Amino acid sequence: MKCADVFRLSMAHPGDLSELETLIAAGTIRAADVTAIIGKTEGNGGVNDFTRGYFTQTLMGLLSKHLNKPSEQLIREIPCVLSGGTEGVMSPHFSVFCVRDSKEEGRSPASALAIGTAFSDPVPAENVGRRDHVEAVANAVRAAVAAAGIERPDDVHFVQVKCPCVTVARAAAAIAAGKAPLTNDPNKSMAYARAAGAFGVALGLGEIGPEDFNDGSLLSDFSIQSPRASISSGVEVESHGVIVFGNSPNWSGQLRLAHRPMADALDIGAVVDVLADLGITAAPQVTALDAARIATVLVKCEPDRRGQIRGNRHTMLDDTDINAQRHVRGAVAGLIAGVIGDGRIFVSGGAEHQGPDGGGLIAIIAASN
Amino acid sequence: MKCADVFRLSMAHPGDLSELETLIAAGTIRAADVTAIIGKTEGNGGVNDFTRGYFTQTLMGLLSKHLNKPSEQLIREIPCVLSGGTEGVMSPHFSVFCVRDSKEEGRSPASALAIGTAFSDPVPAENVGRRDHVEAVANAVRAAVAAAGIERPDDVHFVQVKCPCVTVARAAAAIAAGKAPLTNDPNKSMAYARAAGAFGVALGLGEIGPEDFNDGSLLSDFSIQSPRASISSGVEVESHGVIVFGNSPNWSGQLRLAHRPMADALDIGAVVDVLADLGITAAPQVTALDAARIATVLVKCEPDRRGQIRGNRHTMLDDTDINAQRHVRGAVAGLIAGVIGDGRIFVSGGAEHQGPDGGGLIAIIAASN
Amino acid sequence: MKCADVFRLSMAHPGDLSELETLIAAGTIRAADVTAIIGKTEGNGGVNDFTRGYFTQTLMGLLSKHLNKPSEQLIREIPCVLSGGTEGVMSPHFSVFCVRDSKEEGRSPASALAIGTAFSDPVPAENVGRRDHVEAVANAVRAAVAAAGIERPDDVHFVQVKCPCVTVARAAAAIAAGKAPLTNDPNKSMAYARAAGAFGVALGLGEIGPEDFNDGSLLSDFSIQSPRASISSGVEVESHGVIVFGNSPNWSGQLRLAHRPMADALDIGAVVDVLADLGITAAPQVTALDAARIATVLVKCEPDRRGQIRGNRHTMLDDTDINAQRHVRGAVAGLIAGVIGDGRIFVSGGAEHQGPDGGGLIAIIAASN
Amino acid sequence: MKCADVFRLSMAHPGDLSELETLIAAGTIRAADVTAIIGKTEGNGGVNDFTRGYFTQTLMGLLSKHLNKPSEQLIREIPCVLSGGTEGVMSPHFSVFCVRDSKEEGRSPASALAIGTAFSDPVPAENVGRRDHVEAVANAVRAAVAAAGIERPDDVHFVQVKCPCVTVARAAAAIAAGKAPLTNDPNKSMAYARAAGAFGVALGLGEIGPEDFNDGSLLSDFSIQSPRASISSGVEVESHGVIVFGNSPNWSGQLRLAHRPMADALDIGAVVDVLADLGITAAPQVTALDAARIATVLVKCEPDRRGQIRGNRHTMLDDTDINAQRHVRGAVAGLIAGVIGDGRIFVSGGAEHQGPDGGGLIAIIAASN
Repeated sequence: MKCADVFRLSMAHPGDLSELETLIAAGTIRAADVTAIIGKTEGNGGVNDFTRGYFTQTLMGLLSKHLNKPSEQLIREIPCVLSGGTEGVMSPHFSVFCVRDSKEEGRSPASALAIGTAFSDPVPAENVGRRDHVEAVANAVRAAVAAAGIERPDDVHFVQVKCPCVTVARAAAAIAAGKAPLTNDPNKSMAYARAAGAFGVALGLGEIGPEDFNDGSLLSDFSIQSPRASISSGVEVESHGVIVFGNSPNWSGQLRLAHRPMADALDIGAVVDVLADLGITAAPQVTALDAARIATVLVKCEPDRRGQIRGNRHTMLDDTDINAQRHVRGAVAGLIAGVIGDGRIFVSGGAEHQGPDGGGLIAIIAASN
Repeated sequence: MKCADVFRLSMAHPGDLSELETLIAAGTIRAADVTAIIGKTEGNGGVNDFTRGYFTQTLMGLLSKHLNKPSEQLIREIPCVLSGGTEGVMSPHFSVFCVRDSKEEGRSPASALAIGTAFSDPVPAENVGRRDHVEAVANAVRAAVAAAGIERPDDVHFVQVKCPCVTVARAAAAIAAGKAPLTNDPNKSMAYARAAGAFGVALGLGEIGPEDFNDGSLLSDFSIQSPRASISSGVEVESHGVIVFGNSPNWSGQLRLAHRPMADALDIGAVVDVLADLGITAAPQVTALDAARIATVLVKCEPDRRGQIRGNRHTMLDDTDINAQRHVRGAVAGLIAGVIGDGRIFVSGGAEHQGPDGGGLIAIIAASN
Repeated sequence: MKCADVFRLSMAHPGDLSELETLIAAGTIRAADVTAIIGKTEGNGGVNDFTRGYFTQTLMGLLSKHLNKPSEQLIREIPCVLSGGTEGVMSPHFSVFCVRDSKEEGRSPASALAIGTAFSDPVPAENVGRRDHVEAVANAVRAAVAAAGIERPDDVHFVQVKCPCVTVARAAAAIAAGKAPLTNDPNKSMAYARAAGAFGVALGLGEIGPEDFNDGSLLSDFSIQSPRASISSGVEVESHGVIVFGNSPNWSGQLRLAHRPMADALDIGAVVDVLADLGITAAPQVTALDAARIATVLVKCEPDRRGQIRGNRHTMLDDTDINAQRHVRGAVAGLIAGVIGDGRIFVSGGAEHQGPDGGGLIAIIAASN
Repeated sequence: MKCADVFRLSMAHPGDLSELETLIAAGTIRAADVTAIIGKTEGNGGVNDFTRGYFTQTLMGLLSKHLNKPSEQLIREIPCVLSGGTEGVMSPHFSVFCVRDSKEEGRSPASALAIGTAFSDPVPAENVGRRDHVEAVANAVRAAVAAAGIERPDDVHFVQVKCPCVTVARAAAAIAAGKAPLTNDPNKSMAYARAAGAFGVALGLGEIGPEDFNDGSLLSDFSIQSPRASISSGVEVESHGVIVFGNSPNWSGQLRLAHRPMADALDIGAVVDVLADLGITAAPQVTALDAARIATVLVKCEPDRRGQIRGNRHTMLDDTDINAQRHVRGAVAGLIAGVIGDGRIFVSGGAEHQGPDGGGLIAIIAASN
């Protein structure tokens, strides 16, 4: 049987991997077991957020040294999904997901955390936000589910995807080559990339079929959504990287995963419910003892595009000074960190088609009692 | 007996007082009863936030028309305390506090909401953030407590003060006149003004004595703090305006007030506790029925100046792109709005000496069942 | 004959009209002569810039007092065009354009500054950025040219238009009424409004004909442009307001107007050339004596949408922290203020179809020697 | 004799050193000749600008590969001075300064560009902005002048220094160790670090003596300034790195250096004058032929701390949305790039004590005709 471990580590700056280095040096983490990384860096989370690239370069250099493989190869083998923006109470951190062979055999009586990863081929700029993009993600999702050895689709609880987007420069290059990118507005491109990624997860998990959408559905038909899809987009990748998380009887260990859709940015009920799914009570805050059982918290959210939350006007979308995604990440992280009692949570903006329109989703990995 | 009413109104932009105009036209509000205003406008909350001045000009123009008094006089009679910055889920709104004679006589068996106001003389730029500033606030607090007819100091639950600050231009004018302002950094000046206001409240309420502090204590000795002081600072006022809120047997009505200190930006317990003080349960969210009883929510908070929250690094203070107060307002408002289920809450940054260091305070006015 | 005067006044904040008040009190300006205002306020220049509304409310209140007309009427008679954003060396200021009867008769041997204004009907949200919008502006331009008594189209040198745009709230209201706004992205809406305004000026001045464009040409066919169109867009207006500036032998006075297209954001040559057109030398800076002859400087500019200036990458469009228009205004104002030696210049972003693609235009009004 | 070469290279993002890699691969640049780097990266230029660290890590990795030395050693041998913030028309780029032995002997009839570098020991957080800091810089300046073999102090034209600053975390660590940092406000700390660096250059070049200042002079007595000092400050370094540039008869080559103080942010005369010193005419813009002779442009500037430029109010210091240094860099770069016709210029904010108060300085390296 295989067993997944999660190490949630802090960093002093986006190039600081010293906590990981220490754990590898101590033998706590075997570099060869590192399967995926999901982290929050302290950039602005937008097109010009280079903290993601800086972290990635540092990580791959560190693993390269321990694994004797070039960074260029590792970057295509180990998904490193970073979301920029630690607004408000969020604390920069990264979760290292490791997979090792356990000594146990047979099947877990209770299922345990299972992880699988996959990569697509590089994505041309003109494909971003179109059906080719959706299908490339769906194929990678299916490959990752298979890699995780998860048998029942319902046992998949969270799929993290990182998609490339189009910068002004990439758009110009594509146009010069006679191609037509969907948009040359970088922030718009990131939104389309996230939407296509969400459709890809829904398609790959069988939540929707190939006839249920067309190019026009993206960022338009918000009835299409996956409550298990978490999509990031950034300039620093050229292929889709996919990490599938589920519970499986074929895996051993104390960790289990649960998820809930969030109806809107005020949905504290979803946070309490997903904790309850894992046997943890928040009344109103998780106790320190229970908080220590929580391995990682993964959240998607968005500023309601209709300009209101429960009938009251919000100002996130009309703000020229602060990007709307930065606004909503700060607010939702404030809510969830208050329930958990810990700012080391992954809250990522841009939840188009990822959970209910105007809301998003939350997934938590925690150890059994 | 007197009776206080609270009307929480929304606005489409900082110059939109149409909801107030409608209520006055309908006779629901008598213009002569308007005693104070506390609101959140959608500016940046900093020195160059002119949404506060825009709202104030519009409000005074409207009341001037109904009361046949010049705006210049009204602005010195009716405190209008605005906090800029509706980050995240906050919704721009303002609470109109009205005081009228009720037909009831004698004393309320349960105390009811009592309100009193006062103004200081204009404050010279060189006094901002110094003992003169502290004492001017303290005197105005005492005058407002007396005006409210609150007899026991413990019955005061919330004191809102608006203090002037020093802009680059005001500092230059003072220096040209041979005076020495404490600082010519506008954001620093706002911080000192808030600190001095908090000391003034503590002094005025008898929480500290005149020997308990000197000029050097401001922004330095954070053991001195008042859990009932809420201070705003802005360029648009020249005097200290004070509004005292308490519960008093001399007042009638259904409204009552409670407050709690907040230990830090994750202190969801304080939010649940202050609701419980008013007989309202949040499990995890206030029901719609109970939410309708809530008249207004008033909060102060701050980015922990030590750079950490519960041992985890936050990035609010090192951010060159987004002002730290905008960060923390968004996070704390996200938490509280999630518990209340409503974004129309007054969350104001800059809680120096207002509640515990790194935290702040919350006060809620609600109607009895 | 008529005569136009220009008063360039400073302000301490967006609600400060004290310099105008002083000039009216002194009799230097007759309130009834005030024909139009063009100014730079210190907001962010975006959808949520309320400094424009604040200034406008203050201005109309002041003129209302002197003219005994309600503000609501004046706002439909006197165009008040404000551009938010005094980035870098720009100084908040406003130019008051007055028209009076002069004692001179006959015709000016040299033409003199001529000004005419006009307003359109209110613009429904669903029309913004479409042919109806273009034609409404064109009609207003023709009316303003006629009002100015300018006979030859070539004598028109600058047309300032202020168009309404669509906020999230306005878009939602239109959709609820069964209408389809072009976009519900406020910044996109402002761009379409400016583009439609520029097409309207070109159509109104006969630079293009009605068959030369369709709805798809806006923000797409950048060969269509007017080197005399300056368009602002904002939430605070509901009709198009047009001010036409030209030189005419039917007007008297010392002031004359010239304009030049700017090829890109580095086109210092255009600045020197337009000064030369008015008999002013910059070598490299205008002398203090000549600077005193300059009545007002009006500029449009934009961040090159292709991501490069003269072959070098710029980062304005990929910046999530600072809006691209704020970037370019600061840079172009730095250039022009350096040549003029004065930060009181009107530099407005969003030059879509206003002058060459990636550049813009400059117009200067100056007195003869 | 030695000869200095300058290569001005563009980058697609802060981790993109491909142009340098290409030139090394082609043999145009010998990795061993690389002596110093000065560049503009596209971060925000503040405490939380990690584009500088990202670039530095990438550069040192590249040189490490070619030189077979560890990055940790190279970073202490090759000054890499980066200024974040390519506001407006600035283009991200870096200048590589190489020193090689030339075949020429004797002395240059005209002096040629000479370069020398030096590093201080690591700087404890509590020393930042104090006399120890000043003296450490002065000693490093003297060492770099000697390394350059420049004999006459007047032949030094530009001294670039990079100083460490204090973050919230570093301040907390120092306080925990019983030390008292000057300030725990990161932006304030960067300002003090730049001031101390400027004093260090003035002291090292003999412009001031050790008795001419004390700790209280920093950021206070602005009559003390060096027109040849350019100081950056950042979290990513722990020692002072110094690069001295001058002209010397002991060096060969076509390059020469000139500098001028800038009186204020509108001082276009200084730009034209420094070009004239190098035999280049700007009328109003440098011709393409002459622009090709320009090797690099180095500028320091600042928002006038008195809130005015030539009597007109600016809004840079009161802006809560955009950092004042970002404002002024954008404006001054707009001016200079317009004269040069090229956005690849190094314009760095924070010119405290570097050139005249409220202004700064400009240095240009260009080839002879």
